[in-house]
Order: sequence, then C-alpha cells, then structure tokens
Amino acid sequence: MRIEVINTGTELLLGTTVNTHGAWFGQALFNLGLRVQRQSTVPDGDAIGEELRASLERSDVILVTGGLGPTSDDITREIVADILDRELIMDEHAMRTIEEFFACRNKVMAESNRKQAMLPVGAEIMPNPNGTAPGVYIPPRIGNGTAIFLLPGPPNELYPMFNNEVAHRLTALVGGDVPQTHKELKFTGIGESDFHDSVDGELTRIPDLEFGYCARPNELDLRLIGTELAVAEAEKVIKQAFGEFCFSDDGKTMAQVIIDLFEEDGHTLAIAESCTGGYIASRLTDEAGASAAFDQSVVTYSNDSKVKLLGVPKELIEEHGAVSREVAIAMADGALELSNDDFAIAVTGVAGPGGGTEETPVGTVFIALAQYDHPTYVIRRRFRRDRQTFKFCVSQEALDMARRRMLEFPDLVDRY
Amino acid sequence: MRIEVINTGTELLLGTTVNTHGAWFGQALFNLGLRVQRQSTVPDGDAIGEELRASLERSDVILVTGGLGPTSDDITREIVADILDRELIMDEHAMRTIEEFFACRNKVMAESNRKQAMLPVGAEIMPNPNGTAPGVYIPPRIGNGTAIFLLPGPPNELYPMFNNEVAHRLTALVGGDVPQTHKELKFTGIGESDFHDSVDGELTRIPDLEFGYCARPNELDLRLIGTELAVAEAEKVIKQAFGEFCFSDDGKTMAQVIIDLFEEDGHTLAIAESCTGGYIASRLTDEAGASAAFDQSVVTYSNDSKVKLLGVPKELIEEHGAVSREVAIAMADGALELSNDDFAIAVTGVAGPGGGTEETPVGTVFIALAQYDHPTYVIRRRFRRDRQTFKFCVSQEALDMARRRMLEFPDLVDRY
Repeated sequence: MRIEVINTGTELLLGTTVNTHGAWFGQALFNLGLRVQRQSTVPDGDAIGEELRASLERSDVILVTGGLGPTSDDITREIVADILDRELIMDEHAMRTIEEFFACRNKVMAESNRKQAMLPVGAEIMPNPNGTAPGVYIPPRIGNGTAIFLLPGPPNELYPMFNNEVAHRLTALVGGDVPQTHKELKFTGIGESDFHDSVDGELTRIPDLEFGYCARPNELDLRLIGTELAVAEAEKVIKQAFGEFCFSDDGKTMAQVIIDLFEEDGHTLAIAESCTGGYIASRLTDEAGASAAFDQSVVTYSNDSKVKLLGVPKELIEEHGAVSREVAIAMADGALELSNDDFAIAVTGVAGPGGGTEETPVGTVFIALAQYDHPTYVIRRRFRRDRQTFKFCVSQEALDMARRRMLEFPDLVDRY
Repeated sequence: MRIEVINTGTELLLGTTVNTHGAWFGQALFNLGLRVQRQSTVPDGDAIGEELRASLERSDVILVTGGLGPTSDDITREIVADILDRELIMDEHAMRTIEEFFACRNKVMAESNRKQAMLPVGAEIMPNPNGTAPGVYIPPRIGNGTAIFLLPGPPNELYPMFNNEVAHRLTALVGGDVPQTHKELKFTGIGESDFHDSVDGELTRIPDLEFGYCARPNELDLRLIGTELAVAEAEKVIKQAFGEFCFSDDGKTMAQVIIDLFEEDGHTLAIAESCTGGYIASRLTDEAGASAAFDQSVVTYSNDSKVKLLGVPKELIEEHGAVSREVAIAMADGALELSNDDFAIAVTGVAGPGGGTEETPVGTVFIALAQYDHPTYVIRRRFRRDRQTFKFCVSQEALDMARRRMLEFPDLVDRY
C-alpha cells in the first residue's frame, strides 16, 4: 500500500518551524505495520492542488495536514472538492460542534469559521475535540480509488485525531497484509564501507529483508525491516561479523547504554574533561536516571586547573604538553582520586581551529580510562572535524572505552 | 526562481530521524533572499528518480541531499546521470582527495568508495573537507535548464558545503535582482506575543521590509529582510522597545557573546552545574576561543560532590534541600573560591521526569551569580520541558544573567 504525507505550511518552508510531522507519521504508521513512501511540504494556498493531483495518480492513501483553518489561505477543503469534482456541502453536526467549541470558551464565532464545517459530498467528518477544524475522510470510492485524510496542522489536534480517527480506518484499508518488524542496530568504531565490504552481500541474499545505513559522526546506524525471521537472520549475520562494535540494538543511546551497564554492576563513573569542555558529562545527564551511574565531573580547560583540581604534576605538563598521553593518564588518575567512583574517563586534545602543533596537530586527542585497582590505559585518536563534531566523536570514543571494559571486550588501541 | 529541496533517506520516512534539513535550507535560502517552493522526502534508492523527473519539469533549482555514500542504496549520482542521459566518469582529482581522506586517518579505502569520485560528464565537483562524498553541481546547460546540486546528507558535511560551494552559485544564478540585506536579532526573556502586542504594527508599516519570527526554547529570533534602509529602520524600532533583551544582532550565539564580553573586560568565568550536568560549560567550549573567558567548571551531580568539591555545608543541603536558593548561592561562592576566576555561575534544579516535590516541582531551578567583591544573587525559574530542553533553557538564563551584569542592565528577578 503506497502512502504519502503532504504537509502544507509556509512556515515549514521558511525554516521558522522544523517539520516534525514527517518523523511522527513515520513512527505512527510503522507501529501499524505501514510505511510512508513519500513526504512533501508545500506552501499554504494553491500549491496543494498541484501536489494532490500528482499524488492521486500514484498513491493508495494520502495524508494531508494543514489548510483547514478559517483564513483565506486555508483552502485544502475547497481544492480537494474541486479536484474530485464534488460539491462542498455544510455538515450540520460539524457546524454545531464548532459553535459549541466557541460557546464553551465564551468566545464569539467568526463568520469565517463557518467554512470549517464544509465537506465534499460523500466524505466523512472526523471530530476534533482540540480545535475548531474537524478532519475530513474521503474514502477510496469517492477519491478515485485513493483514500484521502485531511487533517489539522497543530500537533495537539493532529495526534489525537490520528489515533482516534485515522489509525483504525488505515488498518481496515490494509486488510491482512504481511506483518513486518523493524530493528535498529547502532555501531561505533566501524564505517559504512566495512559493512559494504563484508556483510552487505550476505544481507542482500536474505529474502523479505530491507536494510539501510545512516552514517553519523563516529556512529553508524543500520536499520533492518522485514519479516521477523528475516530481521533475526540479518541480526545474526551482522553480530557475528561486528558484535563488539554494536553498542545498541534496542534504540538506546550510547549514554543510556553506559548508565545501564554501570548501574547493573553497581559502578560509578567520574569524568575529567579538557577539550570536550563538559560535553561528555552533558551527554550522560541528558538521560533520566544518570545519577545512578554518574556522580561528578570536572572541566579543566586551563593547565592551571588541571594542576589544582586534578593534581596533575606541573612538570608533567611542562615536559609533555597538556595534550599528551602522560597528562591524560594523570587526569584520569586524578579524577578517580578526587571522587568516590571506581571508574574515571579523562580526555585532553586540540579541538581547533587553532592550537595545533606538528606533534599534536588539530584534531588530536588522548583518552584515558582509569579503573580502581587496574592499570590506567590511554589511546590516541585524531578527529579532523569542526569543534562540535570533534567533541561528539571524542565523547563517543571515551564512552565506548568504558562500554568495552564493562563488557570485557578488548581495549581499544591507538589509531590516528 | 523556483527552488525545490529533495531529501533522500529512509530514516526520515521511518521517523527515526527528524528532518531538520527542510528548516535549515529555508533559513539559509531566506538569507540569500530566496524561497523554497517545495520540499519532499523519498526513501533511499530508486524513488529519487521519479521525484527528480517531476521536479525537473517545474523547477529552476533542485537541491538534493543524501545518497552520495559508498553503499548499494546510494545511487543519486547514477540516477541523475541516467535521467540527463550523461555518462558517469571518474574525476581524478576527487579520487585523490578521497584517497587522502583515508590516508590521513590511517585507514584503508574500501573499493566501494571509488564510486564517490564519479560524476556526470560536464558536472562540477564540490569538495567536501568533512567527509568522503564530494558534492556535485550540474549547471543548467547540462541539466535541461535546471541547476541541480547533489549534496551529502550529514549536517556537518552539508552545511559547510552549502556555505562554501552552493551559496555563491545560487547568487550567480539569480543575477542581480535581489539587492537585499538581512539581519537576525536574537532575544531572550521575551516572547513572540510581546512583539505582536507592541512593535508588530510598526514593523508592518515599514516599506520594503519582510520579517519573520522563530520561537525557540528561551530564545526568540527575529529575521529582517529588505532594503538596507528598511532593515535599519526596523532594527531601531525594535531595539527601542526591547534593547536589553537583544543579546545578539550579528549572528553570534549566546555563548560567543559571553566569551567576547568577558574577554573584552579581562574577566573569567567559573561554573558549578548540578541539573545542567556540564551543558553550560559545553556550550561555552563549543566556541573557538572559549579559553580566553572560561577556565574551569565542576559538575556536582550528587549531594556528596557538592559538599566535597564546592564546600557547600552539608547542613545547608539537609536544611533547605539540594534544590534551593541557599545551596545555589553556596555553590556559586564555592566555585568562585575554588577557581582564580572573578565570576561564577551555579545552577541546581529538578530536570525531571522524576524527583519533584510540592515545594520544588519538576522544572524548578535556582541560578546564582557570584562576582568577586559583590553580593551573590540568585533567581528562581521553572521550565516545564523535557530534560534536554530544560538544560538548554537553564543554560540560556544563566548565561543571560552574566551578560546583563557585564552590560550593566538590571539583574533578572524571580519568575515561575
């Protein structure tokens, strides 16, 4: 079943509002075992007509948001009636509901609101308890074989209407299609081309499986879609090849994975950050429940603060430089000492754009992991990225070092 | 000039990723005096072909994102060549750049990366210093009258490429028919309705001016576009009404504004964070040159660490609770004491979703500002938002307290 979403709204094209409807519909339909084939955004006004005409040619279901309001550029209803060559008539029940909406709020209904109760002959009203614009359902028999849903734009009106009025109609339209499942695996330490060169071929040969990669900085997400059997088979193939690099197979973020691993084992983590400037701690504290695994961190941005707060020997910085293997280790040891925690991560590097040297060029970072009663170890990396991406890449690598240690995978080694 | 944006990416249609490209392009083109007429999202793979064919019929410029990677579902290049009936050839210079990208990172280039250096005969390569996929520009003379830009999907590759490679080509395509200027003013502490109720009417009466608001969490951005005279006139009107709330009129972020103000006056800032968990420090260190104003911070997420690291009296926490006016002040004073800095910000609050009480419900936060030789002051706020938005709102308010102090505006007062 081919499903399209059309969003109308000039504000979406001007960039003043991020279009979150696309992602919301994607998830809502996926939960019904359906997929959006195409999504488009057009300005308020006439553009919706051109878009709808093209969509009617190729789609079984069209979900349209916006353009049901009372103002002059809200003309979705009129355009649909025109395209389907159906008269617009007043729905008396819808009219009363709109009048009541205003009466309840002690407001006077504007004359312009009357048009919100109009719908093409043969269509069905979908009530909107959260706004004045009722939705309109045009069943395939009057939509030239296509089912059309006209829905309000504001999320607080749209989402309940989808759940109460659209979902069951869609399920009825589909009948008994093959149920699909979906899984997302997240990796760090390997890239898209590693997959391409090894498991891509094997995955292609699994029947009823679709898969797609999404490359992010220092992270690769792989989506599997298909029958339950196909997805399980694919997961087995992938985990055999890249198991230790897969940090999440249930939608969890890296930060959440770390928190859960530490909480499970009753451990806590201290952090000492130089070049990431608080970003590692911030990622952990983005997750509810962070306090179960995370206790304290220090951002020692200057040399002075490394000495004072973490007890890094001044001579060590003078001899090796602040961005060095030795200082990273001393920072991690210092952070462990300063806290009651049993693990500590420390990072020191050159985020750029300035500050690089021949020995430690921009992008260089040393990441150390200290563990109570274990030798502290350190790796060297280089991420040549803008500052914010650099900070993300370093944080990802640092958290991955902790993950690997907790799961008893081999420690990472230098790569730069 | 009719401009369309086509985003490819199955993850966008599955709803696993929110499509922020749409809004980003809207703003970027607005700043060039241009408008996006239509935006669509299609899955990875063949769907891009159908979409491109339709777009070529009606558009002058098409911006395509995604599908330039090395894997089997990355076929934008191939499809475009096919539609335009142009052979794909290897660009030797692009090939060398990709090889260097891997060589610099001490990685072996996979065979599959070779196709990233292919482009249709007559097209131009747009370099991508941040990834392996170069962009491709297809000028109108070989695009059947339409200019086509093939761009990488990841934002950290896309945005610089747009600024360095696309913007000037678009400007050249338009010719000289937009002698317009634009300006973005950023505010915190006031909302869109404050503008509606006061200056909106006055702005509407300025000839040759367009303006649009973008409401963000604890920030309102106002974009002005028009003749130089009109924009200057509008800025005057707005600053008269809301001058002290305008923290940026030159594109600078709040963090950059703070760094510049502190550097100018030779001051430095220490930070003590509880509920923001490192996010304030991370915002400052997102900016190059942060070290001129920022020295150190501590994240004291547990009560214990507040006592040990910042010297907050244990009894104070027992008597008033960790989320209290008194503890915020003690944290700020402790941070000042711990550092060599002359200013310190401290925040303590309830990010949620759990942890609220009747007295300090979820979203409550106390923010204190300490200054050497001045009395420390504290404000109470409540931001009822998800954790990440809460952290942003608190950080914005904390940095704004420092900004107002530096610029000698009145200190903020309680509001909740």
